[in-house]
Amino acid sequence: MPTSSSLSELLSTLFERQLLARFEPDGRSIEELCGAVLAEKGEVSGLQTAAAVFKKYRGLTREEKLEFFRFLNNAFDLDRSRVTELAQAYADDPSAENYEAFCTGAEARRLALFRRLNQAPGATAELVRMRADLIGVLKAEPELRRLDRDFVHLLRSWFNRGFLVLRQITWESPASTLEKVIEYEAVHEIHTWDDLRRRLQPADRRCFAFFHPSMPDDPLIFVEIALINGLPSSVQALLSDSRTTIDASEADTAVFYSISNCQKGLAGISFGNSLIKQVARDLSRDLPGLKTFVTLSPLPGFTRWLEQAGQGEASFDNTALKQLAAHYLADQKRPDGRPLDPVARFHLSNGAQIHAVHAGADISDNGIKQSRGVMVNYLYDLKRISKNLQQFAETGTVVASSTIRTLAKQALKLLAE
Amino acid sequence: MPTSSSLSELLSTLFERQLLARFEPDGRSIEELCGAVLAEKGEVSGLQTAAAVFKKYRGLTREEKLEFFRFLNNAFDLDRSRVTELAQAYADDPSAENYEAFCTGAEARRLALFRRLNQAPGATAELVRMRADLIGVLKAEPELRRLDRDFVHLLRSWFNRGFLVLRQITWESPASTLEKVIEYEAVHEIHTWDDLRRRLQPADRRCFAFFHPSMPDDPLIFVEIALINGLPSSVQALLSDSRTTIDASEADTAVFYSISNCQKGLAGISFGNSLIKQVARDLSRDLPGLKTFVTLSPLPGFTRWLEQAGQGEASFDNTALKQLAAHYLADQKRPDGRPLDPVARFHLSNGAQIHAVHAGADISDNGIKQSRGVMVNYLYDLKRISKNLQQFAETGTVVASSTIRTLAKQALKLLAE
Amino acid sequence: MPTSSSLSELLSTLFERQLLARFEPDGRSIEELCGAVLAEKGEVSGLQTAAAVFKKYRGLTREEKLEFFRFLNNAFDLDRSRVTELAQAYADDPSAENYEAFCTGAEARRLALFRRLNQAPGATAELVRMRADLIGVLKAEPELRRLDRDFVHLLRSWFNRGFLVLRQITWESPASTLEKVIEYEAVHEIHTWDDLRRRLQPADRRCFAFFHPSMPDDPLIFVEIALINGLPSSVQALLSDSRTTIDASEADTAVFYSISNCQKGLAGISFGNSLIKQVARDLSRDLPGLKTFVTLSPLPGFTRWLEQAGQGEASFDNTALKQLAAHYLADQKRPDGRPLDPVARFHLSNGAQIHAVHAGADISDNGIKQSRGVMVNYLYDLKRISKNLQQFAETGTVVASSTIRTLAKQALKLLAE
Amino acid sequence: MPTSSSLSELLSTLFERQLLARFEPDGRSIEELCGAVLAEKGEVSGLQTAAAVFKKYRGLTREEKLEFFRFLNNAFDLDRSRVTELAQAYADDPSAENYEAFCTGAEARRLALFRRLNQAPGATAELVRMRADLIGVLKAEPELRRLDRDFVHLLRSWFNRGFLVLRQITWESPASTLEKVIEYEAVHEIHTWDDLRRRLQPADRRCFAFFHPSMPDDPLIFVEIALINGLPSSVQALLSDSRTTIDASEADTAVFYSISNCQKGLAGISFGNSLIKQVARDLSRDLPGLKTFVTLSPLPGFTRWLEQAGQGEASFDNTALKQLAAHYLADQKRPDGRPLDPVARFHLSNGAQIHAVHAGADISDNGIKQSRGVMVNYLYDLKRISKNLQQFAETGTVVASSTIRTLAKQALKLLAE
Repeated sequence: MPTSSSLSELLSTLFERQLLARFEPDGRSIEELCGAVLAEKGEVSGLQTAAAVFKKYRGLTREEKLEFFRFLNNAFDLDRSRVTELAQAYADDPSAENYEAFCTGAEARRLALFRRLNQAPGATAELVRMRADLIGVLKAEPELRRLDRDFVHLLRSWFNRGFLVLRQITWESPASTLEKVIEYEAVHEIHTWDDLRRRLQPADRRCFAFFHPSMPDDPLIFVEIALINGLPSSVQALLSDSRTTIDASEADTAVFYSISNCQKGLAGISFGNSLIKQVARDLSRDLPGLKTFVTLSPLPGFTRWLEQAGQGEASFDNTALKQLAAHYLADQKRPDGRPLDPVARFHLSNGAQIHAVHAGADISDNGIKQSRGVMVNYLYDLKRISKNLQQFAETGTVVASSTIRTLAKQALKLLAE
Repeated sequence: MPTSSSLSELLSTLFERQLLARFEPDGRSIEELCGAVLAEKGEVSGLQTAAAVFKKYRGLTREEKLEFFRFLNNAFDLDRSRVTELAQAYADDPSAENYEAFCTGAEARRLALFRRLNQAPGATAELVRMRADLIGVLKAEPELRRLDRDFVHLLRSWFNRGFLVLRQITWESPASTLEKVIEYEAVHEIHTWDDLRRRLQPADRRCFAFFHPSMPDDPLIFVEIALINGLPSSVQALLSDSRTTIDASEADTAVFYSISNCQKGLAGISFGNSLIKQVARDLSRDLPGLKTFVTLSPLPGFTRWLEQAGQGEASFDNTALKQLAAHYLADQKRPDGRPLDPVARFHLSNGAQIHAVHAGADISDNGIKQSRGVMVNYLYDLKRISKNLQQFAETGTVVASSTIRTLAKQALKLLAE
Repeated sequence: MPTSSSLSELLSTLFERQLLARFEPDGRSIEELCGAVLAEKGEVSGLQTAAAVFKKYRGLTREEKLEFFRFLNNAFDLDRSRVTELAQAYADDPSAENYEAFCTGAEARRLALFRRLNQAPGATAELVRMRADLIGVLKAEPELRRLDRDFVHLLRSWFNRGFLVLRQITWESPASTLEKVIEYEAVHEIHTWDDLRRRLQPADRRCFAFFHPSMPDDPLIFVEIALINGLPSSVQALLSDSRTTIDASEADTAVFYSISNCQKGLAGISFGNSLIKQVARDLSRDLPGLKTFVTLSPLPGFTRWLEQAGQGEASFDNTALKQLAAHYLADQKRPDGRPLDPVARFHLSNGAQIHAVHAGADISDNGIKQSRGVMVNYLYDLKRISKNLQQFAETGTVVASSTIRTLAKQALKLLAE
Repeated sequence: MPTSSSLSELLSTLFERQLLARFEPDGRSIEELCGAVLAEKGEVSGLQTAAAVFKKYRGLTREEKLEFFRFLNNAFDLDRSRVTELAQAYADDPSAENYEAFCTGAEARRLALFRRLNQAPGATAELVRMRADLIGVLKAEPELRRLDRDFVHLLRSWFNRGFLVLRQITWESPASTLEKVIEYEAVHEIHTWDDLRRRLQPADRRCFAFFHPSMPDDPLIFVEIALINGLPSSVQALLSDSRTTIDASEADTAVFYSISNCQKGLAGISFGNSLIKQVARDLSRDLPGLKTFVTLSPLPGFTRWLEQAGQGEASFDNTALKQLAAHYLADQKRPDGRPLDPVARFHLSNGAQIHAVHAGADISDNGIKQSRGVMVNYLYDLKRISKNLQQFAETGTVVASSTIRTLAKQALKLLAE
């Protein structure tokens, strides 16, 4: 990344944004404007037309947006009969000309449209928002998955891991970035700016995020970390205002207690797995005292599973809860052989292992409701991550500590009673 | 763009580069390593394998590189018979599933490979260098244009205009960037650091470049500018050490006297046209005294054309040279109807117009040899650029000043004599 | 200013702060520690002792601080009998040696102490806070003005205008800076972060501050600006949430509606006058549409003066209020010939002129109470500032518009009734 | 330090510099202009007059500068008879008023002038250059030491260690900074930019400098470092192009092989001692493999001393040379009891100790001439620095390794022969 932006760089951006902000779309429909974007030869007028598309789009009603998506899905699709011919021609004669012709024909026209639109300043963020809208209607109109596939294809290319920048978020970060952290925090809500300060400013707190160069103020995903001694067994204790702050160099454990995706429109373009691991590596280098990297995670499906197992009404002591939770996490699988718990799926596919479970660990209303107060530590052991995730990917093997294994076995007895 | 890189950001990058720099490739061939990159599940090991591919590649001989390109071109191609079936299936039933299957099948496996490789730090620059090598062998082995097509496809997406950053290059820029300006200057060679300083430091000189976030020190294209009063009619006068430096605010004319592409591996991914126009807009805003934006350009094909026109041996006075040059630029066309002169094609397709010609304007050996010392001003009239380029694109109309038109007509008489 | 801080720079600072933060003061008193600072030869141990002084100081009670100030005032004073001799010696023989000896002897030892203390990281801010404490006890113990004089002497040198940096404060500024704006705003209180955002983010708002390199997050003084059309005649209208935001380029008037000093410890070290004028110059360059630069200022002494003039109980209509206010501002003087109103003194001595008065302009409780709702526009006419302030400084001439002059004359009739 | 300069900050500076650059001094003499600076009330006109003083000064001849210095030394001195009275008054009655009056009277008027001048942008650098000129004439006109004393007084306050910023200089630093490194390198000359690159870019080289915020491109002092294994015993080997570059993390020794003051005008305002120690601390933190911090230093007075000791014509083998050098460094003193060798004085007063001597260590012409090819390692032992320098300061004790002690004793025998 450039380490400092020159005067000129800032000015250009300001100037372009102003230029486009002032642009008043004429009476053309968004469909006509999209056609014009593809037809434009001149760069400047092209950028203005692109900006007009986004301006028009922002003004559309929900229903009009749906119409627009249908238009993109159908009118800007590829020419099906022609592409079949081109595929056949290439199969018959694999010449460079035939390859070029096939590749061009095999792309829906909307892809070219999106690439052109993306040349306007701020366009990437607009397209991400557009896809967020699209996701909202996919269930009702599964046809549109063709359009969605093309969005994913482009976004994956543009948000390639090699283009992302890891940055620490601190109390010195721009307020415009921090308000997004407040807005996006998905796991343990941040209520006020003072709340936020307590997550960022103390010597034993950290926050890291991935950013994309074209959306410099807007995090893509961020993780919040507490530096402590020993394993964390209660999220309320971890976040308590009255805890004693320690010096970062004295901590032996880094707890990833919250990880939040920020961009609904980037669903399915994963970078969360990279984030935890890169942050763990960075922290272990900066703070050699850190020996353990764990999460303190919810079990969002635990209560539901208990109910399905006919244990919805039963009351358990802490020991029993821990046994059942260990069994639920380590042994309960979906039909496809993956773990039943979604958070378990995320961390295990990411190379972590199930390390410990704690009862009474989240005594908030929601914590009691969704997982009877139980929480779990997933352990990121830097030396075993690669092996773990390869195993998990290939054979579905869930790696768990011996404590977890023992607890899980005891649960079987409990359930058999 | 992020305006400042955090400590952590810098450290991560350093750390990753170190990690990968230390990685020692095992005995596997580059072809095996590429296979492994596609097979890897773990991110960290994937990055290491990607880094190993680049390390291996850098050590290959010219002949081995050619072998590797053939491998990518053939073994990592798409499955031709299967894609024909998939195209047919989608033609028969345009369901989202069939679309997804077709799109996946329609992509050569090398595209997935390149996207994976691009996740390693510094990978984008490596891939650009790889394509530079490929371009060097395309003539001898036109088969490889299939592979080149895929490179172009990806690079065009990654180097999308919306991701580029315009920055001024000054004497305060990092030496690591400046040495690249010295290396890449293609039009009027820069011999020493003192030479370079004379192009950057005086109050009446400017230099701007496009950068890509993943190659922050390495310009993609740059343009050098002189701020003067009146039209420039001699490049030697323009660059003379003994000229009197003027205050930028006193100048009425900005002269784009040199534009250089820096990355051979990005040939065909054009951003030069945006650069001149954006710089012209920026300068006109910062320096309201500037009224005229022109180039001082060579006519690289003029001497050759004179020879072809049977005038190779003739000797002309300055008036005649200007008439012939005006005619050559404005009226001489290729079979496809585009101007014969390549520099004219670039600027006219960019919205500029032919403004004036000057004899004795480049009296260097090369200037005499390729264009008999004649140079031309292309005018960038910000209000007419869009119209000009639309006209040129649609009807091939060359816009020229009345002076040029008159000179060109006089040339006809001259040639008829 | 350096435009980017290198890795190493950040690390050093972090490291030093850590080093010093960890330092545990031994049992020595603050007076002993000060003696040790002056006696230290080694730089590192010197820095540690300096840090110990600050740590100790922060832990002192109000009474102990007073004791410490007395100690500095007396024990670290200059040697009065010796300096008289040295002055005489220099008077007798103005040699360089005698000059050197006199200059050294003429400095109280506390000056050397403060300079040594200031070598520790963060020391400047600590010394500024120390002086803020001192100011609080000066009234009760005027003796300490000797000590205060030395503080002022040093701070004036360190906070020389040439070392200050003007920066815009925006919603992109670090939260750690913004919280200080919330804290320091003295004129129109900022209640929440949303409040703050409304002063910074809209296109027609600006905020600028002076910073000192050694206190980079902590503004010294800041000014808040509204860009509007026409003269502002009501602060409530100006700050209303329901106003229509305009584009900055459409505004013809910049209103300085609030200016706040941030550092109590820098009282008497003025830079406020530079701030308004530099900001006015900058804005007039960036936004050529701006033609008028005015304040919308309170008349903090108006109600009090009315009372003293025996009009405390009288009730006036808006016309009468404006006449009285004009007279109060333009004609009422202190015994030393300067205007009675403190805000008038500030702006007039700064080169502004009295432009217009408005009744019903501040209908807050405080506005009604201190100035019967009247506010005033001081005009900063860039072309007349120098002349105005020279006149005001030399002859006390108050420049006022003809409207103000007419109103002031009408007030005389009113008061004579 | 601010980590990024805002748009506005940059613009202001540019604007001010432009404003002042355009200012045309009128016919007034520099002496009249200085008087005007002190008399000015308006800030803007004050800045312009200050700028005029500098512009005028730069145009003065050597003789005119001398005249100007005399003027400052005499006409802007303090009022000697008055200050004697003021001192007496304060001695009689130590009131705050008398203190204030005395302090004001005790300051030469030139101090107020310099502080005012320093408000103009770029003024600090101008004043530093002015003092450089002054130093050049002090020997011829020792009277002017009064003026010099005041320069030193102010510069010491402005260049207080707490205001300096340590930054690494790399090949990514601005060319405008790097050209100053080339210019200022005093110990081992840098001939070309390629030469410079070899000192900065390899993984086993470092360079650090102190900067002042008001002269951001201009280093005050810099030190060059080689990271190696084992003690360095030859500067030619250390700087050889053909050496094998090692990874920084593999080195066990950091060699400070060159330290250069950059600003002649800051002579006597020492910060060199802080630089080496802070850099040593920083390096030991970043590269835990580093165990030894040494210099490879010349013995500039060795040959001269040999001559004075009647050994000027004698020829010695390497063993004898090392014995004599050890004795010269450790035992030979000036009349004031400090070491005879100036470089020894610098490093010993800085807390270093004499560690080892090497014959044939600098075989350049100059090395042979001034020290018969001998060089010395001064060791910076972070744990002993404070103690060493306290001892050296108080008792003049020279700390040397037992090897050095033994060699020095052997030299006595040699000299006695």
